[in-house]
Amino acid sequence: MNIKITGTGSYIPANVEKNEDFHNHEFLNSDGSSINAPNEVIVKKFKAITGIGERRYAKNHLNTSDIASFAAEKAIENSNINREDLDYIIVAHNYGDVRHDSIQSDTVPSIASRVKHLLRIKNPKCVGYDLLFGCPGWIQGLIQADAFIKAGIAKKCLVIGAETLSRLIDPYDRDSMIYSDGAGAVILEATNDEGGIITHNSATFALDEAHFIHFGKTNNPEINEDRRYIKMYGRKIYEFALTNVPLAMKSCLDKSGFGIADVKKVLIHQANEKMDEAIVKRFYKLYKMEMPENIMPMSIGKLGNSSVATIPTLYDMILNGDMEHQEINKGDVILFASVGAGMNINAIVYKQ
Amino acid sequence: MNIKITGTGSYIPANVEKNEDFHNHEFLNSDGSSINAPNEVIVKKFKAITGIGERRYAKNHLNTSDIASFAAEKAIENSNINREDLDYIIVAHNYGDVRHDSIQSDTVPSIASRVKHLLRIKNPKCVGYDLLFGCPGWIQGLIQADAFIKAGIAKKCLVIGAETLSRLIDPYDRDSMIYSDGAGAVILEATNDEGGIITHNSATFALDEAHFIHFGKTNNPEINEDRRYIKMYGRKIYEFALTNVPLAMKSCLDKSGFGIADVKKVLIHQANEKMDEAIVKRFYKLYKMEMPENIMPMSIGKLGNSSVATIPTLYDMILNGDMEHQEINKGDVILFASVGAGMNINAIVYKQ
Repeated sequence: MNIKITGTGSYIPANVEKNEDFHNHEFLNSDGSSINAPNEVIVKKFKAITGIGERRYAKNHLNTSDIASFAAEKAIENSNINREDLDYIIVAHNYGDVRHDSIQSDTVPSIASRVKHLLRIKNPKCVGYDLLFGCPGWIQGLIQADAFIKAGIAKKCLVIGAETLSRLIDPYDRDSMIYSDGAGAVILEATNDEGGIITHNSATFALDEAHFIHFGKTNNPEINEDRRYIKMYGRKIYEFALTNVPLAMKSCLDKSGFGIADVKKVLIHQANEKMDEAIVKRFYKLYKMEMPENIMPMSIGKLGNSSVATIPTLYDMILNGDMEHQEINKGDVILFASVGAGMNINAIVYKQ
Repeated sequence: MNIKITGTGSYIPANVEKNEDFHNHEFLNSDGSSINAPNEVIVKKFKAITGIGERRYAKNHLNTSDIASFAAEKAIENSNINREDLDYIIVAHNYGDVRHDSIQSDTVPSIASRVKHLLRIKNPKCVGYDLLFGCPGWIQGLIQADAFIKAGIAKKCLVIGAETLSRLIDPYDRDSMIYSDGAGAVILEATNDEGGIITHNSATFALDEAHFIHFGKTNNPEINEDRRYIKMYGRKIYEFALTNVPLAMKSCLDKSGFGIADVKKVLIHQANEKMDEAIVKRFYKLYKMEMPENIMPMSIGKLGNSSVATIPTLYDMILNGDMEHQEINKGDVILFASVGAGMNINAIVYKQ
C-alpha cells in the first residue's frame, strides 16, 4: 500500500494588494520610533529582500472556512472521489475565522466542521478537526493523515491549509506587507499506485524559539486599543531557519533512500525569497552541490505568504500548469519543506 | 504491543465561583427579553437540571497554556518518564490563550509550543501541536496519539485538555453558569503491559448540527460591542446527544469484544447531569439493562463543564482517590465518551 495525493485544489483570493498600496502607510519601528526613510524606499527594500510584489486578500464577506471549502471543493472534484467516502477532514490554520469587522478569532465550531457543513457532507464517520502548527500546519496535516492511513483508521483524507492573515496585520508594521490570504487542499489516499509519501520529519523548537512569532501590540504607541496582531522577530527567524531547515530536509531525504540528484523540485514555504534561496542553497551545500536552476518554484512574488495555504497552493498551480517553466511529472521525487511559528519545521519526501 | 496511559495529572483552578455568585447577574433570554423569575429561582432551576453547584475559574494571571503545563508536569511526574523522551505533545483546546483582560484568542504560537516551552523540554523531535475538536478534543487527542504509535512514528505522547471558558462567557446568559476552567493530562505509551486502548469511535455531525455551539452576541441588546461569546442551543444539543451518544458508545463497546457486564465505569463528558444520566441510561437500555449504581462518576457538581479538561481531570481524580465511592482498578474495563461543538462525538473502550 502506498499513500498518495490524488487530487489538488486551491483558492486564490480576488483582491490584489500591490506594494504601492502601502505607500500611504505610516510605518514605525517596533519600539514606536519612526523609520528614517520615505515609504517608497521602505517598500522597495522590502521587495528586494522578500521578493513580494503583491499579495491577495479575501473579500470582506469571506472567512477562512469559506475559502478552505472552495479549495476543498476543487480537490474533491480533481480526485474524482465521492465526498461521502472521506474519513477525515483536517484543516490546518492558525487564527480560525476572523471576520473582516472583528478582532476576535472564531474557532468554535472548528473550521473543519464548518468546511464539512459547507461541503454538504452527510456521513458522520467523516471526522473533521483543526490542526494548529504554525505555517508548517498543512504538511503536518499530511503527516497525520499518513499516520491514520497506516494505523488503519482512514483510507481517504482531505487535508486543507487556509488562512486570512490580512485580518491580523498591524498597519504600522512593515512586516504586514508579507502576509496574505489563501487556501489549498489535497486528497490523500491509500492506493496501489507507485510512489506517494516516502518519508517525513517534524520538529518543534520551543525552548528559546517559542515566541519568535507571536501576538503583539501595534507599533504605534499612540494607539491605545485592546488588540494584538501577528508579530515576528524577523532576524532571529532568518538565522533559526538557515541553521535548522537544511538539516531537517537532508535528514528527511537521507532516510528516503533517494539521493540529492533524484530531487526534481523543492516546494518550500514562501515567507521570504532571500531566506528560501539561502535555505535551499545551504541544503545543496550539505551535499557539496550548487542549487540547480528552477529547482525551487516561487509563488511569493504574486501571492505573498499565506501561511499554511502556501505550499498546497503552489503544488496545485504547478500541476495545473500555472507556474511558468515549472512542472512535476509522474515519478518525480519532490521535497516539501516548511518552517514557522512554534517554531516548527517539517519536510516530506514525496514521489509523484 | 499495547498502548496505555502510564501517568495522569490535572489542575483544578483556585477560584471557586458558587451559584450564589450569580445572584446579582441580570439574566436575559437570547432574544433580549427578561426572564420572568427572580435570580434565586433561575439559579435553583439551573442547579436542578445541570447538577452544577459551583465551578472553578483560573486566576487572572494564568492562561490556558499555563494551566495545561501544570497538569502536564504532574502527568510526567506520575508516569516516571523522562520528559525529553516524549515524541508528541498534543493539546486539545478550543479558544487558545484568552487573557483575562482581552477578548482576543491567542493561538500563535500553538498552545503546545507554549506548554513545551514551559516544561523546558529541549528535544526538537518532541513535536507539539494543537487539536480543535470541541469538548471531545482530549479523547480525540488520545485517538490520534494511538494512531501515531501504531503507525510507528511515536512511542510516548503527552495528551492534554485545557480550557479557560470563564473568559468566553456572556454575563447576561444563564448558560454562562455551566462553563468552567481546568486542565487534565495523561502520558500515553507503547507498552508490553496488558490492556490499554482497545477500540475507539469518532464522528462529526455537521450538516445540520455544525452551529449548535457557536460564537454569538451578548443577550443584552443594549450593549453595543464588538465581542462574541460561547453560545449554545441547549435543547437541540440535548436531543442530539440523547439520540447519538448511546449508539456511539454501543458501537465502540461492541467492536471491543467486551460485553456490557464487563464495563466497570463510564467516564462521560460532564456538561449537564440530567443529560449525562439520560445518555447512560439509554446506553444501558440498548442492552436491555438498568444503569448500575455508581457506574458514572460525576464531577460536575463541584467543577462545572471545563470542556476538554473534564474527562482527564475526572480520570485523574478517581485514580488519586479524590472521588468518593469511586475507584478504577487494574484490569477494569472503562468507557470514555464525549460530545460537543462540531458537533463531535467520540468514545474509547479502555482496559486499565
